[in-house]
Amino acid sequence: MTVTAQDIRRAAELLDGRIVRTPTLHSRTLSDIAGCRLWLKFENLQYTASFKDRGACVKLASLDEAARQGGVIAASAGNHAQGVAYHARRLGIPATIVMPAQTPFNKVRQTEHFGARIVLHGADLAESYDHAVEIADREGLTVVHPYDDPAIIAGQGTAALEMLEDAPDLDALVVPIGGGGLIGGMALMAAEMKPGIEIFGVEAALYPAMKQCLAGADIRTGGTTIAEGIAVKRPGEITREIVRRQVADILLVDEPALENAVLMLLEIEKSVVEGAGAAALAAVLENRERFAGRTVGAVVSGGNIDSRVLSAILMRGLVRQGRLVRLRIEIQDQPGVLGAVARLIGEAGGNIVEVYHQRLFHNVPLKQAELDVVLETRDADHVAAVLKALSDAGHPATMISSATGAKVG
Amino acid sequence: MTVTAQDIRRAAELLDGRIVRTPTLHSRTLSDIAGCRLWLKFENLQYTASFKDRGACVKLASLDEAARQGGVIAASAGNHAQGVAYHARRLGIPATIVMPAQTPFNKVRQTEHFGARIVLHGADLAESYDHAVEIADREGLTVVHPYDDPAIIAGQGTAALEMLEDAPDLDALVVPIGGGGLIGGMALMAAEMKPGIEIFGVEAALYPAMKQCLAGADIRTGGTTIAEGIAVKRPGEITREIVRRQVADILLVDEPALENAVLMLLEIEKSVVEGAGAAALAAVLENRERFAGRTVGAVVSGGNIDSRVLSAILMRGLVRQGRLVRLRIEIQDQPGVLGAVARLIGEAGGNIVEVYHQRLFHNVPLKQAELDVVLETRDADHVAAVLKALSDAGHPATMISSATGAKVG
Repeated sequence: MTVTAQDIRRAAELLDGRIVRTPTLHSRTLSDIAGCRLWLKFENLQYTASFKDRGACVKLASLDEAARQGGVIAASAGNHAQGVAYHARRLGIPATIVMPAQTPFNKVRQTEHFGARIVLHGADLAESYDHAVEIADREGLTVVHPYDDPAIIAGQGTAALEMLEDAPDLDALVVPIGGGGLIGGMALMAAEMKPGIEIFGVEAALYPAMKQCLAGADIRTGGTTIAEGIAVKRPGEITREIVRRQVADILLVDEPALENAVLMLLEIEKSVVEGAGAAALAAVLENRERFAGRTVGAVVSGGNIDSRVLSAILMRGLVRQGRLVRLRIEIQDQPGVLGAVARLIGEAGGNIVEVYHQRLFHNVPLKQAELDVVLETRDADHVAAVLKALSDAGHPATMISSATGAKVG
Repeated sequence: MTVTAQDIRRAAELLDGRIVRTPTLHSRTLSDIAGCRLWLKFENLQYTASFKDRGACVKLASLDEAARQGGVIAASAGNHAQGVAYHARRLGIPATIVMPAQTPFNKVRQTEHFGARIVLHGADLAESYDHAVEIADREGLTVVHPYDDPAIIAGQGTAALEMLEDAPDLDALVVPIGGGGLIGGMALMAAEMKPGIEIFGVEAALYPAMKQCLAGADIRTGGTTIAEGIAVKRPGEITREIVRRQVADILLVDEPALENAVLMLLEIEKSVVEGAGAAALAAVLENRERFAGRTVGAVVSGGNIDSRVLSAILMRGLVRQGRLVRLRIEIQDQPGVLGAVARLIGEAGGNIVEVYHQRLFHNVPLKQAELDVVLETRDADHVAAVLKALSDAGHPATMISSATGAKVG
């Protein structure tokens, strides 16, 4: 079983009019920041908000009549689930999606919304997948693997065709790697269209499964990542061979780099991107020397990010910019002092949003107390000015880590 | 001084290659929700993230050499400031921007970044404008009015040309109104390209200045709106006459409708939109009967929204969906009870994010206490299940308004 550029061109014909031809846009501001000519492929603008629409549509369309009537099954709590469920409904194919038992309800609902039967089973995705195979055997369903399938790989590869049509000068492609379906297809297509183009894969530093696998090392992954879309423990068998042959290097990006890239896409490109979707941009920004002066295409692979995570990223961004800080202020524990401190902060232009006044447990002398104040400020210089105003008035104050746990300063 | 469709076509030629030709895209999901065929014009994807680039570029390019060398001045803390500063730098024209004295520093910096001289002066924009006129007289600068100028109106009108080229079937356009520059130009162009198309204006309910002005009423505006981009107190003289002739109706949208539209554009379209930029969508959703079955183009006019505001909108969305709630639980004030309650909540699938344990001030009998707990939940049904689990175990609990002040349920 292998995949050719010809398969990908056929997949593109099949997809025409059935998926969104997402834009590939030059970003002037991010190019300036990254020091290269950067183009972004906005796969977060697909109907189910990720590139998974491509492979799912091609795979389902490739099934014969008997398989279609029998129905399909997939294991995923995320983008693959939505892609399969949506295209199955569109084609009138019954779909079952197995999700880990602890899947958040809003993810369940997003897939149920497309009319799929949902089975909650397993402690993780590997267990869900095994359960999906069992159900498939019992009920005669066709399993739609998320990446290790030639039809899926051919479908995902069409993203490269569009990118190189829209931005033919690209000399490097940067693509996130989960199981390897997206980069596998894209690398094959790009190599045929533009021999010599360099393909870089990107994995979350906590889940470097493909990199370890190609290095012949044991696969050691784990931890909490905001790039759950590429937090894969078993790279594909077919995909790993394509990656071995076609991919120049696999770059790893840590959580702060992912978080920063999500925030930049939000603030600069006005685009909502999930952690995995920001991985390629993160890799470009973290490896500027490799891309300096080049014409680089980065795939923004998806936009399904939880509101809570997005909100936290925004607030942590404010903390990093010195626009939200927590100060600890030493005060005399007597009437009127809180008012005096609040007035000083207000006069210095700080806007108090939270106050914690404690005297029982802090390590301060009797008759003194500590006041923790969360403030909106303008920037780091402004924070310094507020600290100085407090200190000059006899209330020594220090900036402490914010409630969000992000580094301050 | 008037503006013609011919002026707008000339402006479009001038803008070609100098601004972003933003996409006009059909939204399937929002069409289903709104009950019409809805197209969105994404002006938040302009370089300075609003349509103001259009008018600023046309106006500055129309200046003669002496005026260019003399320099320009504008009053704005927002999108007009960025549009003028950016295109002035591009054209090598010295620019001064007057902003109200209390303008947040990040807005100052965004405009300073384009090389403009910033003057902080005035309690509101009207005072800033008057000060700009004074400086202009003193220093020989050309004032760039944000809307009441034929070149500005012609520039903004080019958005209609692009929309009707990209979506020729539109039979209604919905456009936010601040001073009236955008709707004025767009209405003139649309009427020429497509006689019979209906143009609707949208104002924030707190700032219905154009609607009041055309009704011959006193202008009464005020209050805090997330649509500060259209919170204008003085509609233009030129623009009001165009609106009077060309606009079918002005629709008003309240703050919850604006907030909801920002959230929908974020979650469904994956697009970051400011309050004013979401006003047209809000109006379509709030006036479904007027648009039912029609082909409607709504202008997403800008994307410059403060991170704090965006974060709050996301969190309030969770509260409305029952995914974040605050419960008040009556407990016996004795060792072990907090642990028991926390275990009950955990067993019911709720994730505790904040706890407030108070017994001094609440209106409960001695030896009882009240516990306020902020929980992550799945939806309203899940909240009901958690409440029942607590009540069944002898801890009566009620849902109380969340810290964000949004309506719960």
